[in-house]
Amino acid sequence: MSSSFEGIPEYGKDLIARFMRFFRPRNVAVVGASREPGKVGYAVVKNLIDGGFKGKIYPINPRATEILGLKCYPSITEVPDPEVDAALISVPAPLVPEVIPSLAEKKVPVAVVVSSGFAEAGNPELQEKLVSIARQHGIRIIGPNTYGVYSPWYSLSLSFTIPYEHKGHLAVVCQSGGVGMAAFGYARWKRIGISINVGLGNMSDIDHTDLLWYFYADENTKAIALHMESIKDGKKFIETARIVSKKKPIVILKAGRTAYGEKAAKSHTAALAASDEIINAAFKKAGVIRAYALDELFDIGRSLAMMPPPKGENVLIVTMAGGLGVLLSDASYDNNLKLMEAPQDLVDEFKKFVPPFGAFGNPMDITGSCTPDMVERAVRLAIMHPKVDAVIIGHWHTIITSPMEFAKAVVDAVNEARGKGVEKPVVVSMSGDIPETLQAVDYIETKANVPTFFVQPERAVRVLGALYQWARYAGILRK
Amino acid sequence: MSSSFEGIPEYGKDLIARFMRFFRPRNVAVVGASREPGKVGYAVVKNLIDGGFKGKIYPINPRATEILGLKCYPSITEVPDPEVDAALISVPAPLVPEVIPSLAEKKVPVAVVVSSGFAEAGNPELQEKLVSIARQHGIRIIGPNTYGVYSPWYSLSLSFTIPYEHKGHLAVVCQSGGVGMAAFGYARWKRIGISINVGLGNMSDIDHTDLLWYFYADENTKAIALHMESIKDGKKFIETARIVSKKKPIVILKAGRTAYGEKAAKSHTAALAASDEIINAAFKKAGVIRAYALDELFDIGRSLAMMPPPKGENVLIVTMAGGLGVLLSDASYDNNLKLMEAPQDLVDEFKKFVPPFGAFGNPMDITGSCTPDMVERAVRLAIMHPKVDAVIIGHWHTIITSPMEFAKAVVDAVNEARGKGVEKPVVVSMSGDIPETLQAVDYIETKANVPTFFVQPERAVRVLGALYQWARYAGILRK
Repeated sequence: MSSSFEGIPEYGKDLIARFMRFFRPRNVAVVGASREPGKVGYAVVKNLIDGGFKGKIYPINPRATEILGLKCYPSITEVPDPEVDAALISVPAPLVPEVIPSLAEKKVPVAVVVSSGFAEAGNPELQEKLVSIARQHGIRIIGPNTYGVYSPWYSLSLSFTIPYEHKGHLAVVCQSGGVGMAAFGYARWKRIGISINVGLGNMSDIDHTDLLWYFYADENTKAIALHMESIKDGKKFIETARIVSKKKPIVILKAGRTAYGEKAAKSHTAALAASDEIINAAFKKAGVIRAYALDELFDIGRSLAMMPPPKGENVLIVTMAGGLGVLLSDASYDNNLKLMEAPQDLVDEFKKFVPPFGAFGNPMDITGSCTPDMVERAVRLAIMHPKVDAVIIGHWHTIITSPMEFAKAVVDAVNEARGKGVEKPVVVSMSGDIPETLQAVDYIETKANVPTFFVQPERAVRVLGALYQWARYAGILRK
Repeated sequence: MSSSFEGIPEYGKDLIARFMRFFRPRNVAVVGASREPGKVGYAVVKNLIDGGFKGKIYPINPRATEILGLKCYPSITEVPDPEVDAALISVPAPLVPEVIPSLAEKKVPVAVVVSSGFAEAGNPELQEKLVSIARQHGIRIIGPNTYGVYSPWYSLSLSFTIPYEHKGHLAVVCQSGGVGMAAFGYARWKRIGISINVGLGNMSDIDHTDLLWYFYADENTKAIALHMESIKDGKKFIETARIVSKKKPIVILKAGRTAYGEKAAKSHTAALAASDEIINAAFKKAGVIRAYALDELFDIGRSLAMMPPPKGENVLIVTMAGGLGVLLSDASYDNNLKLMEAPQDLVDEFKKFVPPFGAFGNPMDITGSCTPDMVERAVRLAIMHPKVDAVIIGHWHTIITSPMEFAKAVVDAVNEARGKGVEKPVVVSMSGDIPETLQAVDYIETKANVPTFFVQPERAVRVLGALYQWARYAGILRK
């Protein structure tokens, strides 16, 4: 552990060390691997292979010699390596506790239990037994009853669902299989780059707090999105989040925050939900950003992972339509952003090429009559101005500038600024016909890594607001 | 006018009569039609033709004999028909007022002025002159500086943008060209059926209030979505909305509702914004549903136009994933929906086929292990139960039931119920991989006309909440 981990409690250091092995494994054992397609133990091995895992894969099954072309072992104790970095268990629930001691022999730091039939099926005793044995043997448990974990930078798809292909900088934790699958569907739709995805399942042992320590240390993780139904130890979570969110933004969708939701959560996980007001106060104290909808969680998460940190509070709106400028302004107010007074020298520059029926303030309304060149000039001027700290760009589809021409103008201006060492948060709202506008949205996100939203001006501003909420907490803004 | 218009003020009856001609015209004149592709006066004539307008089209241009194969007239006074039902004016701004008297000769009820160069360009006097002359001649004006109007049931695309192809039951009004184009992009993306779309442009004369009367009378309009930056006469609007929303739901995105937005709106339209608190109180009094984001406006609007009215307050959630059930429950609470106590006989029916690790309450968690048959059975049971008034369905992608199998199960169950005369509001939240989940969303919306949302459980509940807000105001719920 490097000196940057000073101030981290011992258990945090222990978790980081464990997860550094587990999420970046040299080898993986699948206890309960199967030769039968359709079985979970088969799907897991197949996903490891299909996901392109570079290390050794050890299928464990006493009744098989080979699975999917890989040599099979009767027990994990028989594998040639002295240590195994990651294990997944998919044997029937009653057998899971018995497997644990064998993992200890190979110094497995963390085991994922995908088997179901524990607390969620009315067997809390079996789950307690599992945790107790794991604790005795120094092994930490993810699950049981989880879809598994993903570590795309290390080509690790340790799950019975399909591999995830986009590696990136957002760490995602889901305390529900259904929400986890929603996360993957959404992530594939938006091509969200993921650093880690963990399904907590029944959360018998490893919880959000434990994972935060690894995300803190993981150089591939820039932002953290958590779906949370319950907190095991609220105080510990808040203490951890306070430290972690000084370094990396955390956004949380707290499910079960209302009377109805709490009732549903109890029937679902038997977990006790805290009062929403207490949670809200605690989250604020810890610099945690709160999302109130599933798509908002993912949108904020992915955008936080894309944007550079802002240096100051001065936000400028550049819009091609006055009406969108109004919506973007309302959203800026709602999200506690500071719409700066437009600097006079910048106004003068805009007046050189924007028609007089534009508006030369903030929003800077360059009107729907602007050509691709004018769009690029406007975006470049806004980003390059030394007093502007972040830019919101509003687009609407006109016959003068096609959505793709607009997209190229934005990408060129943003990348040109980057080439000059100018990195500022930029968000884009696009509105227009399909499919061309959707293609242009993709182009901007792919080529310039700038969060871009289709017919969602308020969401574009929301993600910038989230970034600023974090930046204020982290104390990185110019005074 | 039929007797159902009793209680409508005289000016309302006058507007209905005008708009009944204007939005369902026997003939249309385009004053300022052009032979040159790229010109607005050319695009308008082309759109009328491309849109499949069945009535007569009269291009007006003193310097042309034929435009796009249509006979051209030097003045509207020369067209053979004694009356012209709709006129669009695209001559240069200073000439617009001069055109008005000629329209009066043909008893034009309403004229759309797409020309710009009025108040938005610093010429409020010209705009006042236009309105004053129009008033003298008994003509009402939409615009100036607008993209135009669409009346898809009458194949009328009276605009310089492209025709809109999906006719349906949502009336849309946009007080901004950029927002109007956003509305079209979104509408094409979601294939929203539109009854009317009007761009108010500078709103020199015809405003939201005036249009409400036509929407009230129009049998093709089931729901109304308004983008509003300013209200000319707040009292009149509220009095009108109170009457109209007893019959049809109205959802409004009020732009310029914050200090920033108001400032932006002033620079954009020179319109004076009212205090947001006053607006909120007035909207509530008038039964108006408020949206706070552009996509929320369209989502609520289209869903209101799709769903049948509910008969009572009892809402049931049927979910395939406990975690989504929690999110749907939170959203139900937020949207003031009543999650009923699950009736015992319904619980008994579910216990016959749902695994014991499901949850038999509200949410009714049928688990991710259910087959397509089980999904269909569950949805049918929920919809058909006499005590259930509305159903929220939560889906997540499993290997047991593909998204399309789920979609077919829902469509079959909903349509079977309809065949038996059982019409209840149903909303669906789907979460899973693309493209199959997106295809399934489309399938449900197209085949069963049920609002279905991808990775937006909260939005699915939001639109149902909006329907209930309206139903309570309209007084249609069982006591």
